[in-house]
Amino acid sequence: MMLSWNRYGKSRIRLVKVRRRAERHDVIDLTLDVQLEGAFDAVYLEGDNATCLPTDTMKNTVYALARQDDLVHVEAFAARLAAHFAAKPGVSVARISAVEHRWDRLSQQEGRHPHAFVQPGGEHWTTIVTLDAAGLRTVSGLANLVLLKTSESAFAGYPRDQFTTLAETNDRVLATSVSASWIYRTGMKDFSVREQIRQALVETFAGHDSRSVQHTLYAMAEAALAACPDIIEVTMTLPNRHHVLVDLTPFGLDNPNDVFVATDQPYGVIEATVRR
Amino acid sequence: MMLSWNRYGKSRIRLVKVRRRAERHDVIDLTLDVQLEGAFDAVYLEGDNATCLPTDTMKNTVYALARQDDLVHVEAFAARLAAHFAAKPGVSVARISAVEHRWDRLSQQEGRHPHAFVQPGGEHWTTIVTLDAAGLRTVSGLANLVLLKTSESAFAGYPRDQFTTLAETNDRVLATSVSASWIYRTGMKDFSVREQIRQALVETFAGHDSRSVQHTLYAMAEAALAACPDIIEVTMTLPNRHHVLVDLTPFGLDNPNDVFVATDQPYGVIEATVRR
Amino acid sequence: MMLSWNRYGKSRIRLVKVRRRAERHDVIDLTLDVQLEGAFDAVYLEGDNATCLPTDTMKNTVYALARQDDLVHVEAFAARLAAHFAAKPGVSVARISAVEHRWDRLSQQEGRHPHAFVQPGGEHWTTIVTLDAAGLRTVSGLANLVLLKTSESAFAGYPRDQFTTLAETNDRVLATSVSASWIYRTGMKDFSVREQIRQALVETFAGHDSRSVQHTLYAMAEAALAACPDIIEVTMTLPNRHHVLVDLTPFGLDNPNDVFVATDQPYGVIEATVRR
Amino acid sequence: MMLSWNRYGKSRIRLVKVRRRAERHDVIDLTLDVQLEGAFDAVYLEGDNATCLPTDTMKNTVYALARQDDLVHVEAFAARLAAHFAAKPGVSVARISAVEHRWDRLSQQEGRHPHAFVQPGGEHWTTIVTLDAAGLRTVSGLANLVLLKTSESAFAGYPRDQFTTLAETNDRVLATSVSASWIYRTGMKDFSVREQIRQALVETFAGHDSRSVQHTLYAMAEAALAACPDIIEVTMTLPNRHHVLVDLTPFGLDNPNDVFVATDQPYGVIEATVRR
Repeated sequence: MMLSWNRYGKSRIRLVKVRRRAERHDVIDLTLDVQLEGAFDAVYLEGDNATCLPTDTMKNTVYALARQDDLVHVEAFAARLAAHFAAKPGVSVARISAVEHRWDRLSQQEGRHPHAFVQPGGEHWTTIVTLDAAGLRTVSGLANLVLLKTSESAFAGYPRDQFTTLAETNDRVLATSVSASWIYRTGMKDFSVREQIRQALVETFAGHDSRSVQHTLYAMAEAALAACPDIIEVTMTLPNRHHVLVDLTPFGLDNPNDVFVATDQPYGVIEATVRR
Repeated sequence: MMLSWNRYGKSRIRLVKVRRRAERHDVIDLTLDVQLEGAFDAVYLEGDNATCLPTDTMKNTVYALARQDDLVHVEAFAARLAAHFAAKPGVSVARISAVEHRWDRLSQQEGRHPHAFVQPGGEHWTTIVTLDAAGLRTVSGLANLVLLKTSESAFAGYPRDQFTTLAETNDRVLATSVSASWIYRTGMKDFSVREQIRQALVETFAGHDSRSVQHTLYAMAEAALAACPDIIEVTMTLPNRHHVLVDLTPFGLDNPNDVFVATDQPYGVIEATVRR
Repeated sequence: MMLSWNRYGKSRIRLVKVRRRAERHDVIDLTLDVQLEGAFDAVYLEGDNATCLPTDTMKNTVYALARQDDLVHVEAFAARLAAHFAAKPGVSVARISAVEHRWDRLSQQEGRHPHAFVQPGGEHWTTIVTLDAAGLRTVSGLANLVLLKTSESAFAGYPRDQFTTLAETNDRVLATSVSASWIYRTGMKDFSVREQIRQALVETFAGHDSRSVQHTLYAMAEAALAACPDIIEVTMTLPNRHHVLVDLTPFGLDNPNDVFVATDQPYGVIEATVRR
Repeated sequence: MMLSWNRYGKSRIRLVKVRRRAERHDVIDLTLDVQLEGAFDAVYLEGDNATCLPTDTMKNTVYALARQDDLVHVEAFAARLAAHFAAKPGVSVARISAVEHRWDRLSQQEGRHPHAFVQPGGEHWTTIVTLDAAGLRTVSGLANLVLLKTSESAFAGYPRDQFTTLAETNDRVLATSVSASWIYRTGMKDFSVREQIRQALVETFAGHDSRSVQHTLYAMAEAALAACPDIIEVTMTLPNRHHVLVDLTPFGLDNPNDVFVATDQPYGVIEATVRR
């Protein structure tokens, strides 16, 4: 028997940094995972920990380096961490994953409450930075962006078999929780483009004349690639949060796309990667 | 042995209604619970279901009445449901609870995407309407409003005993997830005041010079009562989402209120009711 | 405006104690909440913390007293904590809630793995101990005991109205997640009776010829009271985890109580208190 | 731009089947996902649904085939589903994932309550069956098997750097939630071996003299491979559910491995694949 693959690290390191400037504060709120792969066979087979950097040390390192970093772009901080851990004996791959939780300033007029924030909840930014012999790879994205539209969504013309009961529709409610991630070209530095990519995704969802979730997914991915020349490909996952029209005929009532049950399960899932 | 109290009903009825107007759509997204109390002893003791309105019928009723209601104020719809169920044989108390999930229009310029929405997640409105012999009682509120401030929060001057290790602080991060509920005076009709109450809570949190969570809770409740003469009392629950300053001295680093661990548990909880 | 009620404390204090004996170890795994009520108006109104025992101190106290307690019965440990906190200035009510997570020994033959455990998950024991001017009150229970039976469950004979669509059944799947809590008589010491109460609940669920969830709930509560003379009343909450028979007729198939959809929501909830 | 990868299907199809025999009933409780890959470019690029089998039909198919299957081994049922979907136009890969939720008979004496069950919660069986041009691949496993040992666990001899603060220990509490999955050799039919593999994992965890989580993971995987010649490789994920010894010295108390805080985050994660 042999160890054919291994990885270890620390998960869910919760880091909040406050950048204090005279006129206002900024809050950066991250949940980080550190993962290392490498030549750690002696740890597994012989119980020899000589090369096994404790995951507790990984955690300490994240906090210490966060003190020394301005954390303007989480991608750059993750790259710094990856470089630190990749230099340790035995490590062949260092992988840093980060979820960035949003905090919005309470007031549009920034001068008013420059130290107070509200968390919109749900939606967050994601980053995975991987450093190995092939170099640095940066994949960023967003998750749990929940969108809904009440028009311009159809699903018809699909194949029928002995198990088909679904009715065709040309006007349904379309709701989804968008996860998207994109690979940046090597050397990319200005990670603030993520806002433009998000905007392209949202605008396309809203404006697209949808014949299926797949159809809208592709349009959204295409728009993201068009919005940012620095990304090579986009992968998207769109669960279909079904809104089922309630049958009110037993009660002598019609239901012209008015009252729906929002269902949690089962749900459709559509995933695809679009690249240049 | 005797049945000294009983209640039954249907929980988590998911209802989405789309109000379609020429220029734009509105989405109302509710999760409702129906609960009835009454003289149902024969159901429990004898297995006689003659008075036991099925919870499945409760669910159907919610959808049918939703078709016939414009659902402008969830409080009014809940009162309508309560009246329907309170009229059933044996029922002494009808209680309708509703959680209203927010959907924000995608664009500030409403003309642009009048049928597309984003869900901010987390925060939601709540309502509990109770109808019994004493009349109708309406309690509304909000939950999971997550706020944070990076200045003007202290905690000092507390008693010390043999188990005290906490250090006093005059500058800490204060974060909480606000739950608040308020009782409306009888006869109240314009439930849109909830936006003003929310605004009072948020503004007070941001602007208050806090000596403790309790101190800020009271100020917030007072501001809510001042903002709306139609509410009699406010109950608030403020969990203290502790942000612990990381000790970086083992690494030769200072940490002047810069790097924090956000902890999930244990957490403080402060609750109180303030009334006129 | 006035403070009409207040309570504060520390929640989700995670405590694991290992009782080490020569022949075997025991694991006690608790999540505790401490809650105090009292004359704390100055804390809220004036920001004066002189009587505000920090929740951090509460947490420390739990760990320190756990070192000095054998923790054979969580009820006794909770009473000890309640007495400690009730003696603090200003406190009128001290309330300790505990959830006890089960760990089963890995092997039936105890001699074999006397230090290894598996966690069955889900089900747990609960205790709430309250100490105030009226004395000590101990309420214990269990939660998340998930039971299912595939026979001897009916639901028929219920009233019908214009919103009824449910079909009567004399043979359905009945599934629920039992929560039960019972009040012990004053002076009770042997809290190991909870195992007998659990056994009575489970046996009655299994053997009862059920005409409704209500009917079975009452029989279970009655059995619990019969099993333990030291309890005064039992409160039970039984959500109805609906198993809906799938309609296979569109596919030319029958479905004689064979294939079901287990649904999460909406669900019925039945609650009642039975006392001597 | 081009579609470089795509997959779609239905997730969280909840299926419960009751096998009714004269002397007793069996309950099979599954949550299934169906996922298809293939030549579906026209669906994405042109909104042409001619090859897009609705996910609603997938769900119907699962229930209809469940009626016709005895469901003795979930692996065989998943293979049957995979064969059905792989035969549809355009499909190149059909993947069925199943989670099997456990229901234990209430009584050891089967004759007593042959129709009543308790759900132990947490732990479940998993299966992923994939059918493509390369043939059928069956990967089974278990997840959320929560284990703890109070002796024979050490962690020492690890490298130290400027960020190390962890103390070496030769006697710690070791707790984890085991996820394991294994690949069966082609042609395997008797999937009841999973019980033996589970037994090997559990016994090895309990009896191993652990120098690290890695060390124990490897021993467990080795034991699984030894227990079942029909599996080719095992992949395991062991989160380290840290139990931190509480520092009671500020209160003048010692703590000889007696009182611990069970922490949720951050946590170590150890993953590896072991093969013959």
